[in-house]
Amino acid sequence: MFIAGLQAVLGADGVVTALDETRAFTQDWRGRYSGQAVCIALPRKTEQVAAVVRLCAQAGVPVLAQGGNTSLCGGAVPGTDGPAPVIVNLQRMRRIRSVDPASNAIRVDAGCVLAAVQRAAVDNDRLFPVSLGAEGSCQIGGAIATNAGGSGVLRYGNMRENVLGLEVVLPDGSIWDGLRALRKNNTGYDLKHLFIGSEGTLGIVTGAVLKLHPLPKAHATAWLGLDSAEAALAVLELVQAACSGRLSAFELMSASQVALVARHVPGRRCPLDGAPRWHVLMELSDTCSADELGDAMQAVLEQAIGCGLIGDAAVAASEAQRNAMWGYRHGASEANRVAGIGLTTDCAVPVSAVPAFIAAATDAVRAIVPDLPVMIVSHLGDGNVHFIPFLSFEHWGGLADREGFAARVRRSVNEVAVGLGGTFSAEHGIGQTLVAEMARYKPAAEIAMMRAVKRALDPSGLFNPGRLLP
Amino acid sequence: MFIAGLQAVLGADGVVTALDETRAFTQDWRGRYSGQAVCIALPRKTEQVAAVVRLCAQAGVPVLAQGGNTSLCGGAVPGTDGPAPVIVNLQRMRRIRSVDPASNAIRVDAGCVLAAVQRAAVDNDRLFPVSLGAEGSCQIGGAIATNAGGSGVLRYGNMRENVLGLEVVLPDGSIWDGLRALRKNNTGYDLKHLFIGSEGTLGIVTGAVLKLHPLPKAHATAWLGLDSAEAALAVLELVQAACSGRLSAFELMSASQVALVARHVPGRRCPLDGAPRWHVLMELSDTCSADELGDAMQAVLEQAIGCGLIGDAAVAASEAQRNAMWGYRHGASEANRVAGIGLTTDCAVPVSAVPAFIAAATDAVRAIVPDLPVMIVSHLGDGNVHFIPFLSFEHWGGLADREGFAARVRRSVNEVAVGLGGTFSAEHGIGQTLVAEMARYKPAAEIAMMRAVKRALDPSGLFNPGRLLP
Repeated sequence: MFIAGLQAVLGADGVVTALDETRAFTQDWRGRYSGQAVCIALPRKTEQVAAVVRLCAQAGVPVLAQGGNTSLCGGAVPGTDGPAPVIVNLQRMRRIRSVDPASNAIRVDAGCVLAAVQRAAVDNDRLFPVSLGAEGSCQIGGAIATNAGGSGVLRYGNMRENVLGLEVVLPDGSIWDGLRALRKNNTGYDLKHLFIGSEGTLGIVTGAVLKLHPLPKAHATAWLGLDSAEAALAVLELVQAACSGRLSAFELMSASQVALVARHVPGRRCPLDGAPRWHVLMELSDTCSADELGDAMQAVLEQAIGCGLIGDAAVAASEAQRNAMWGYRHGASEANRVAGIGLTTDCAVPVSAVPAFIAAATDAVRAIVPDLPVMIVSHLGDGNVHFIPFLSFEHWGGLADREGFAARVRRSVNEVAVGLGGTFSAEHGIGQTLVAEMARYKPAAEIAMMRAVKRALDPSGLFNPGRLLP
Repeated sequence: MFIAGLQAVLGADGVVTALDETRAFTQDWRGRYSGQAVCIALPRKTEQVAAVVRLCAQAGVPVLAQGGNTSLCGGAVPGTDGPAPVIVNLQRMRRIRSVDPASNAIRVDAGCVLAAVQRAAVDNDRLFPVSLGAEGSCQIGGAIATNAGGSGVLRYGNMRENVLGLEVVLPDGSIWDGLRALRKNNTGYDLKHLFIGSEGTLGIVTGAVLKLHPLPKAHATAWLGLDSAEAALAVLELVQAACSGRLSAFELMSASQVALVARHVPGRRCPLDGAPRWHVLMELSDTCSADELGDAMQAVLEQAIGCGLIGDAAVAASEAQRNAMWGYRHGASEANRVAGIGLTTDCAVPVSAVPAFIAAATDAVRAIVPDLPVMIVSHLGDGNVHFIPFLSFEHWGGLADREGFAARVRRSVNEVAVGLGGTFSAEHGIGQTLVAEMARYKPAAEIAMMRAVKRALDPSGLFNPGRLLP
């Protein structure tokens, strides 16, 4: 009856119920989380999403909005307790609705894959700057619902800063058309910001107007060797003062992390011959000529070397060398996967507090396991540190209570971050896994406001129950 | 009894009741709006604000938060109907709490005057980029509550984009400490965006962490003469492609507006000798050398002249000439005040729609009054057009129903903007004057959500009643 109603809205092929076909939707891509769903709904347009939501509201069935299912914290698949939801997956809504280059705006369906939006921008001589590992499969709607971060945040901000307008199906099944392409609009509460980062708990994003930027034509990329995280911070400050908005990446890595990439990723060779304690991948990008940008890079490196902040530096002399540097940086995930068990964390602190955070977090985890190796990959420019206590497979295999151990180690890192005015989830979000941390760290007044907003927009509590809110 | 309670919290000098002293708070700076207040509360710290709000909540007395009282739409003073409020003015809370240059963050009391924050930034070799006419008297809390715009929006965004964290006293008298200095934080709804632009209807902002930026050291400024608004748009696109983030101002003015400044503002002389139909003031700013920036300006102007987009151009050869260009641009307000009655509007449309907006709005107002003069000042880079139907004092004086006429003319302009996907209030906000326009133009789903949020956070409806929400 309920399924028949959905089929009447979506057509027979728009409702997936066969268990072997639903698994791709009910289990996350790493196979760590899975749960039951009533069915998978595959709408082709906004009105169908609204009709599905109305049917669910009438029947009291929970609604779980799903994009590319690339969450790192179980945010896009059902849990194991509570009533099973209808999963509304937007993969069939993937039109680029329109591009307005003169307004630097693009209007898209929420089911568009992020990489398709990036390509549409380039086709119009523009940049869509949100860029992350999952960009080949994650969808715009999911990137909005989780306020995706990535490597472009230093210069262009998070997903939030790149959304101009939204179209949302609300929990009562009504459609909010907030698809504006305006840079200034002071007419009441800016409701789009409620939905950005709300992880499907307030509505389903079905469309968006996104910001475009001038397409950089030149890049200047350098790999730096430094003695300390403090020196890296000083170089960052110096480069920002000299190069301002041209600085597009400033990625810090510990020597331990760099060594792991060299050892475990075939074909990767560190751009520096020496053995500095810290490494920085730094990039300038602009619409100017490559020569002009190269001169700017040269000048600022000479300044930093003159101040004694940099021990050694290599500048990419070709696009191939630039790609090799980025490949080395991105090799960290692969190296960590094959070399052992990394207990990844996702903290951010005020930029000036990053060195203190790294020092104190290292002490904290070594108070649990003396001499525990630690890998560090940090988007230093925005204060986001992936601090990764690292165990050999043998060590991990020999632990009596692995989950408890992992939780204890991660908690010790999060405590340090929060103590420095930081956050326990900088870019990955809350999903299923961090709800308890929310209860622990969020001020009571803030939790109370979130709950009040949730009740106001989703009084029946049917949208993604059990997620985000403690 | 109620007043005594406030005095117990604030001290005798913290509660103003004498009519001759309250007038500065109950009447707006232009003398257009005024109303009654129970009293003026002048707290010195956040806890006092919270205590005042609790007393008001117990007594059922409305609360009106006030900053520098510089609203252009009666947003900061009481209305004439409904029970009189307590005005909570934050002028005594004006500490710069701390500056963290390495994190590009400054922490301030909400009562800080905007210009004081700008100065504190410069003292730390940083820029706080929000800049507007009232910066010498408007307060940060008011600029946040109204999401202030101004001339820096093209490059740095509105006030909203320059707030990292907030401290807010909520309608129940509790204090939300959201004073974070983080660039990434994905832990639930981003509640600060609810308060930014909420015009005092959801709480009182008492403190903020604001974003700082590298301080530009060089400016290159040019005055351009063009044939059409379309040509101005083409130049904007060309400059953005060539100069990217260096473009810091792109201000369009009609020949009528330029002529009025020349005629009515003593000492002002148009930077161009000819009589182009449109004028653009364009500025590049960066941390690089003045020579480098001058070369970039020269190159892009040659390109635009080569494309036939610019008829004539003057480049400022000194800081004095730069100031003269800006003085000419800013002379528009004074010229319009002395020359007649300007029915200022504050629309924004997608940038690409600005020429169509100007053409259609001109037609619309001339359908009411044939040949009506129109002054146009536009922040073209962010689509914001101050389209100003202009009447001589004689014309205005001879009108039978001035208010009705002004409303009719403004409405005709707003209709055009909204029809082009635009807004009737780009940067000035809603206040008392535009509540009816909210009811007319906002989608029903959006009004319903706003009301739901208002009820959720201010169930008694005591915060700035009658404002913003229809």
